Amino acid sequence: MLAAVARRGQLVVEELREPEPGPGDALVAVRACGICGSDLHALVHADAMAEMSTLGGAPSRFDPEGDFVMGHEFCAEILELGRETDGVTVKPGDLVVSIPVALTPGGFEAVGYSNTYSGGYAERMLVTAGICMKVPNGLDARRAALTEPMAVGLHAVNKSGIKQGDSALVLGCGPIGLAIVAALALRGIEPIVTADFSPLRRARAAQMGAHVVVDPAEEPAIDAWRRIAPSRPLVVFEAVGIRGMLDAAMRDAPPQSRVVVAGVCMEADEVRPMVGIVKELSIQFVFGYDPLEFAGTLQSIAEGTLDVAPLITGCVGVEGVPAAFAALAQPDEQVKILVEPGGPLTPTAP
Amino acid sequence: MLAAVARRGQLVVEELREPEPGPGDALVAVRACGICGSDLHALVHADAMAEMSTLGGAPSRFDPEGDFVMGHEFCAEILELGRETDGVTVKPGDLVVSIPVALTPGGFEAVGYSNTYSGGYAERMLVTAGICMKVPNGLDARRAALTEPMAVGLHAVNKSGIKQGDSALVLGCGPIGLAIVAALALRGIEPIVTADFSPLRRARAAQMGAHVVVDPAEEPAIDAWRRIAPSRPLVVFEAVGIRGMLDAAMRDAPPQSRVVVAGVCMEADEVRPMVGIVKELSIQFVFGYDPLEFAGTLQSIAEGTLDVAPLITGCVGVEGVPAAFAALAQPDEQVKILVEPGGPLTPTAP
Repeated sequence: MLAAVARRGQLVVEELREPEPGPGDALVAVRACGICGSDLHALVHADAMAEMSTLGGAPSRFDPEGDFVMGHEFCAEILELGRETDGVTVKPGDLVVSIPVALTPGGFEAVGYSNTYSGGYAERMLVTAGICMKVPNGLDARRAALTEPMAVGLHAVNKSGIKQGDSALVLGCGPIGLAIVAALALRGIEPIVTADFSPLRRARAAQMGAHVVVDPAEEPAIDAWRRIAPSRPLVVFEAVGIRGMLDAAMRDAPPQSRVVVAGVCMEADEVRPMVGIVKELSIQFVFGYDPLEFAGTLQSIAEGTLDVAPLITGCVGVEGVPAAFAALAQPDEQVKILVEPGGPLTPTAP
Repeated sequence: MLAAVARRGQLVVEELREPEPGPGDALVAVRACGICGSDLHALVHADAMAEMSTLGGAPSRFDPEGDFVMGHEFCAEILELGRETDGVTVKPGDLVVSIPVALTPGGFEAVGYSNTYSGGYAERMLVTAGICMKVPNGLDARRAALTEPMAVGLHAVNKSGIKQGDSALVLGCGPIGLAIVAALALRGIEPIVTADFSPLRRARAAQMGAHVVVDPAEEPAIDAWRRIAPSRPLVVFEAVGIRGMLDAAMRDAPPQSRVVVAGVCMEADEVRPMVGIVKELSIQFVFGYDPLEFAGTLQSIAEGTLDVAPLITGCVGVEGVPAAFAALAQPDEQVKILVEPGGPLTPTAP
C-alpha cells in the first residue's frame, strides 16, 4: 500500500507491506486524515517527540531514527477485524474515528508517532477495534476527521475554567486556535477576541464564531479587548506555540487572570516570573483530551452544532503529503489539509 | 531619628528628620521589623522594584534614585494620631501591626518601598491609622512582626487549592518556605516534604511542621516524596526564587499537578513549555495576601496555634541593619533577623 513515510527528517512516498491486524486490531481504509502542526515539527525533530513521550514518566518505545508514518487525525472505514474482537460494536463497512492510541499487549502505542502503529498518511492502517467510534448521522469522512483537533480545543476550554460572563482572547488562529474559538462559541462566551497575522486564518476565525478578529500588525490583541470588554474577567489562550508568546501572553494578561497554553513550543522559552507574581497569574498548560471530550466532539460535529467546514482548506492524496507539508509552512495559504488516499498531488480546495 | 537609609545601592545609617503625621496617619515607634529577602534584592535593584510596581497597570511614584527606608514587616507602638483619625479603633500606647500600605490623598504608597512613607528600619514611622490592627492577647512585638511574612505563606497555600489528602513539596526553607510549611501544617496536609541546602533552615523546617526534610545535595526532594507518598496528589511550592528553579519544579512535578511560585525570581528565567504541556501542569504565581489573611495570621500567632519563634534567628538595632543584610546573604547563618531600635550592632540570637 502507498504511504508517506517519515525517514530521518524527510517524507518519502513509497509502497509498504500491507498491515496485518493482530489480536484486538481492526484493519481500516483511511478515508480522510488531517495534517497536524505537530507533524511538521515531528518530521524534523522526531528525537524531541520521543523525549517528550517520556516526560510523563513512561518509557518511550518510539525510535526517532526508525521509519514511521504520521497521521493521527483520521477517519477510516473498517475493512477487517482481527482476532479477539468479539463484542466490539463496529463491523466491516463502518466509518469510524478513534483516539490515536493503540492498546497492545506491550502497552500503549501513539498511532502516528510509532514505529509499529502507522498513522493515516497511508492507504490503510491498524486501529484498536474496541475503542473505535462509529461516525453517526451519515457525517462525511472529511468533517469526521476533524474530531481530533476539535477535541483538543474543547479540552483546552474545559481545562481553562472559563465561565459565563468571562471573555476570551485567543492568540493564533491555526487549527488549534480555531478549535478553541469554536468551543468557546459553543459555550456562549462573549466576546471572543482573536488575533493572527494571516488574513485567511482571520477570516476563518470569524466563521468559527470569533466576535473580534485582530491583525496584530495593526493593533495588539489585548488593546482590542480593552476597547471592547475591559471589565470582564479574561482568559487568554496561547495557541501560537513559538518562543516569546508565553511571555507576551503573561505581559498582556490582566491581574488575577489565567493563561491557557495550548500552543506547542518545542524549544526552551524565556519568561519573566516577576510579571506572573505581581499579577498573580495562573498558567494552565493543556494537552490532548479525554475519551468523553473526543466522543462529545464527534457528536457535536455530527449534529451540526459544530461546523468544522471553515477549517478545511485543502485535500491531497498520499503522494501529495510532501507538497502539503510545504504548503502548511506558509500559514497564509492553508489552515487544515486533509490527506485522502487517491486524492490530488497538490493541496486542492475541498 | 535614626534610620537605615537605602541610597543608590548602599545602606546608610543616619539621623533623619522626625516624621510628622498627616491626615489619617499615625506616628508609631517601631518595636520590631523583620528583614525580608525582597529587601536584599531591592537594595541593589531598586529600579526593578519600581518597574515591578507598574506591572499591575498602576503608575509608580517610587523613584529608585531617591532615598528610601525599607522595612515592611513591622510591629510598632502608636505614639500619636494625626488629624482626621476620628473613629479609628487604635490609640496611643497600642501595639499594632498593619498591611504595609499607606492610603494617601494621592493614592496608595507601598510602605518600605516609597520615597515618602518610610518603613521599619528606623526608630519611628508613619502608618495609616484606620487600617492598623491592635496586637491581641499580650503577644510580644517580635512574634507579631512575623504576621506579614506568615500571611504570605497562608496566601500561597490558599491560592494553591491544596486540600485534605494532598501532599506538599516545599522547595526552599527561607522565611517564605517556612511560612508555607506552617500554613500547610495548620491545614493538616501530610506529608509535607521540604528541601534546603542549609542545615539551619532544614532544622527550622522540621520545627515548623515539615514531616520530611531533605538536603538536596544528598537526595532530590522529589525522590524523597516518591519514596513516601507517591500515590498522593502533590502540590509543589517553589520558594527559592532563583533562575532555574521554576524549570526544575516543572520537571519534578507529577502529571496533572500544580506548581505554586512563591519564590521571587527578579530575572528572566527559562522554562521548557513542552514539559508543562505533556504533564498538563498548572503554574500558580502568588503574591502578598489579602486583609483577611493578614488578620487571620495575626490571630493564629496570638492564639499560639502558629508558633513563629523558630523563624527568628537574630535581632539588631537600626545601626546593625547593614551587618544584618550581610549576614542574610549567608543562608546558613540566619533565617529571619528582626530590627529593634536600640538593639545590638550585629545580629544576636533573640
